[in-house]
Amino acid sequence: MAGPLTGVTVVDLTRVLAGPYCTMMLAELGARVIKVENPDGGDDSRQFEPFFQGKSAYFMSLNRGKESIALNLKDAADKAVFLGLVRRADVLAENFRPGTMEKLGLGYEMLKTIQPRLIYAAISGFGHTGPWREKPAYDLIVQALGGLMSVTGQPGSPPTKAGTSIGDITGGLFCLAGINAALFQRERTGLGTKIDVAMLDGQIAILESAVMRYATTGVIPGPMGNRHPSIAPFESFTTADRAIIVGIGNDSLFRRLCQALGRPELAGDPRFQSNRSRLVNIDALKDAIEEVLKHKPAEHWLTELELAGVPSCPINNIADSLASPQVRARNMLVEAGGLTMPGNPIKVSGVEETTTRRPAPELDEHGARIRRELSQG
Amino acid sequence: MAGPLTGVTVVDLTRVLAGPYCTMMLAELGARVIKVENPDGGDDSRQFEPFFQGKSAYFMSLNRGKESIALNLKDAADKAVFLGLVRRADVLAENFRPGTMEKLGLGYEMLKTIQPRLIYAAISGFGHTGPWREKPAYDLIVQALGGLMSVTGQPGSPPTKAGTSIGDITGGLFCLAGINAALFQRERTGLGTKIDVAMLDGQIAILESAVMRYATTGVIPGPMGNRHPSIAPFESFTTADRAIIVGIGNDSLFRRLCQALGRPELAGDPRFQSNRSRLVNIDALKDAIEEVLKHKPAEHWLTELELAGVPSCPINNIADSLASPQVRARNMLVEAGGLTMPGNPIKVSGVEETTTRRPAPELDEHGARIRRELSQG
Repeated sequence: MAGPLTGVTVVDLTRVLAGPYCTMMLAELGARVIKVENPDGGDDSRQFEPFFQGKSAYFMSLNRGKESIALNLKDAADKAVFLGLVRRADVLAENFRPGTMEKLGLGYEMLKTIQPRLIYAAISGFGHTGPWREKPAYDLIVQALGGLMSVTGQPGSPPTKAGTSIGDITGGLFCLAGINAALFQRERTGLGTKIDVAMLDGQIAILESAVMRYATTGVIPGPMGNRHPSIAPFESFTTADRAIIVGIGNDSLFRRLCQALGRPELAGDPRFQSNRSRLVNIDALKDAIEEVLKHKPAEHWLTELELAGVPSCPINNIADSLASPQVRARNMLVEAGGLTMPGNPIKVSGVEETTTRRPAPELDEHGARIRRELSQG
Repeated sequence: MAGPLTGVTVVDLTRVLAGPYCTMMLAELGARVIKVENPDGGDDSRQFEPFFQGKSAYFMSLNRGKESIALNLKDAADKAVFLGLVRRADVLAENFRPGTMEKLGLGYEMLKTIQPRLIYAAISGFGHTGPWREKPAYDLIVQALGGLMSVTGQPGSPPTKAGTSIGDITGGLFCLAGINAALFQRERTGLGTKIDVAMLDGQIAILESAVMRYATTGVIPGPMGNRHPSIAPFESFTTADRAIIVGIGNDSLFRRLCQALGRPELAGDPRFQSNRSRLVNIDALKDAIEEVLKHKPAEHWLTELELAGVPSCPINNIADSLASPQVRARNMLVEAGGLTMPGNPIKVSGVEETTTRRPAPELDEHGARIRRELSQG
C-alpha cells in the first residue's frame, strides 16, 4: 500500500495483539512489514478462535498486508538471516517479556552497533524498567491494575472491563505514534532510538477525567454508568422499546429538548434551569424525561430529536454499527482473504483508499523470497 | 521539552478533549504547541469542572506545556497574525465541525497555497466526508454508534460506556500517529498533507474481537462482563472481600492454579481438562473456583497465586492505581501548576524524563511575545 510510510521497512517480531495491532497500522500507513515467526507454529494467535475457512479470523485481521518469514532465533544460520534483515530495516518491533531479546543476544544495545539508524520499538505489559517489568500481563490485567475497570460499569455494579482490548490497543497506538515520531527525528539526525511502551502506562495516560477528579477532590471515582460527571442531561434514557443517548451541552439545547418532548415547561422548572441545578436534581430530571420517552419507541424519538437539532443517537449493536452509512462511506470496512475487518481510520489526503488488503500471510509464505533478496545484497 | 519532535511547531486550534489530547502528546514528544483561542473566553474547557485553585483541572491537564495566543479569526488583523503563524508552522490541528475552517476562509485548500509544507490535521466526530459529516458528536455518541457500548457491561446489563472518553482519546491518538507519519513523509518529499480523523472511525478500528466474531459467525456479540470470549478461566472472581483477576492461558497454568487453591483434583476433572472443556463448563468452573476463594480475602489469594506463578492481580481503584510502585517508577504521574496528572507513556531512549511540566497557559499568556516574534520576521 502507498502512504506516508512508503519506503519504510519494519522487521516485526510481535505476536498476538498489542504489537501486531501497531505493525498492522504501520502497514496501513504504507510501510513494508516483515513478520518474523518461530518455525514451530508461528504467532500463537494463528490458533485463536474464531476461525474463518480454517484460519484464525483474529490472526487474519491483525496481520493483513504483512509478509512472513519463519526464523529460529536460537539457530545460528537463521540468526544471521535475521541480522541481515535488521541491517536493512528502519524499524524493529517486538512485544516479548522484557529481557527476552537480550537473552537471544539481540538486545537494542547490540543491534544498534550493527544498525545505528534502527528504531527499536518494544511494547510490553509493564515496560522495560521498574519493579514489575518481568511480571506477566494481559489486557484484562492492565485494565484492572490501571483503574479503568473501577470506573466502568453501572452504578453499584462490579468493576467492569471495557468490551474491547483497550489495554493492548492503546499500548499499540502509543507505540505507533512513538515509532513515527522517531522516524521523523531520524531524518533530521541520522540516528535511531529505542521506544519503550508499557500497556499499563497507556492505561494511566487515558484515564483523564477520573485522575483529574481524584487529584482535585481526593474522592475516589466509581462507575457512573453512562452518565456524564459534570453535564446533565447527558446519558442514556429508556424509551418504549430500547435505550437512546441524549447529550445536552447547554441551556438552549435543553429548551429544544423540552420542546421536542412536548414538555416546554420543564425548561422553566427551577430544578432544571441551569446545568448546575440539573446536576443537583439529576434523578428527578431523568425520571421526568423518561416519563415522556416511555410512551413511544426509540425510532420515533430519534426522528423528533434530530428534527429539533438535539444531539442524540441509538445505541448500536455491532451489526447496526457496521451497517451505518457513515461507516461505509468512510471505507471503514475492508476485506482481506475474504474476511471483513475494520479499515484504516487515518485518512491522508492524496492516498488512494482501497477496500481490499493483501491477506495475512501463511507461516513463512515469503521466506524464500526474502532470503533471496538478502543474498542478492 | 526535548524529544523526537523538537523543532516542530504546531498551531493548535483544538478545543475540549480529542484535539487537545493529540496536541498535548505532540508537546510531550518535543513539539512547540501554540494554542490559538478565541478572545471571548478561549477553549470552552477552561470552564469545565473540577476546579483546582480556581482553574479547570480538565483544562490544566490537557493543555500543559502549550502556549496561548487569543485571536479572533473573523477579525482581519487577527487573521493576518494567524496566517503569519501558519506560514511558520509545521502542523495545524483543529477539531471544528467540518466546514468551519472553510467558512472562515481558512480551509486546507487555501492554507496549502500559502504553506505547501503544512500538515493540516483535523479531528471530528464523523470525518470530513460522508452523509453524517455535519452531525454533532460527543464521546458518548460515538461510543454508542460505534458499538463499543453494546459489548461493554455485565451480561444482561444495559449497554455501558467505557469509563473514560475512549472515543475522544483514540481519535486523538490516531491523529497523533497520522501527524507524525506525515512529518516523516514531508522530510522526504518536501510536501505537507491533510489528515482527516473521525472519532467514529476510531471506534470501529478498536473493536477487534467483536467484529471478528460477528464477521465469522453472524452472531451479534453482547456484553460478557469480564469474561474472555475464548479462554477459561480468564476473568474476575469474588473472594471473601473483593474481586480479583485470574488469567489462565494454558493447561499447565491451570494445574498450578488448582494446586494453589488446594484443589489439585480439579485439574483432572474431565469437565476442566482442556481449554475447550473449561469453556463448555465455564459456570461450573467459576463456581468451583469461587467456592475456594470465598474463604479467604483477596490479599491472601494474590500472595498465593503470585508464589505459584499464576497471572493474577487486584482490581485497583484510581487511588490504588496511581500509588502503584510501577506507575511511580515509570514516571507516569507528573505535575504542572501544582496539579498531578498522567505522564507520557511513550518512553524514548536518550530523552530525559522530567516529573514537572510547564503549566497550561492563561488565555493569551504568550500573545504579545508571539506577535513580537512574527513582526521580527
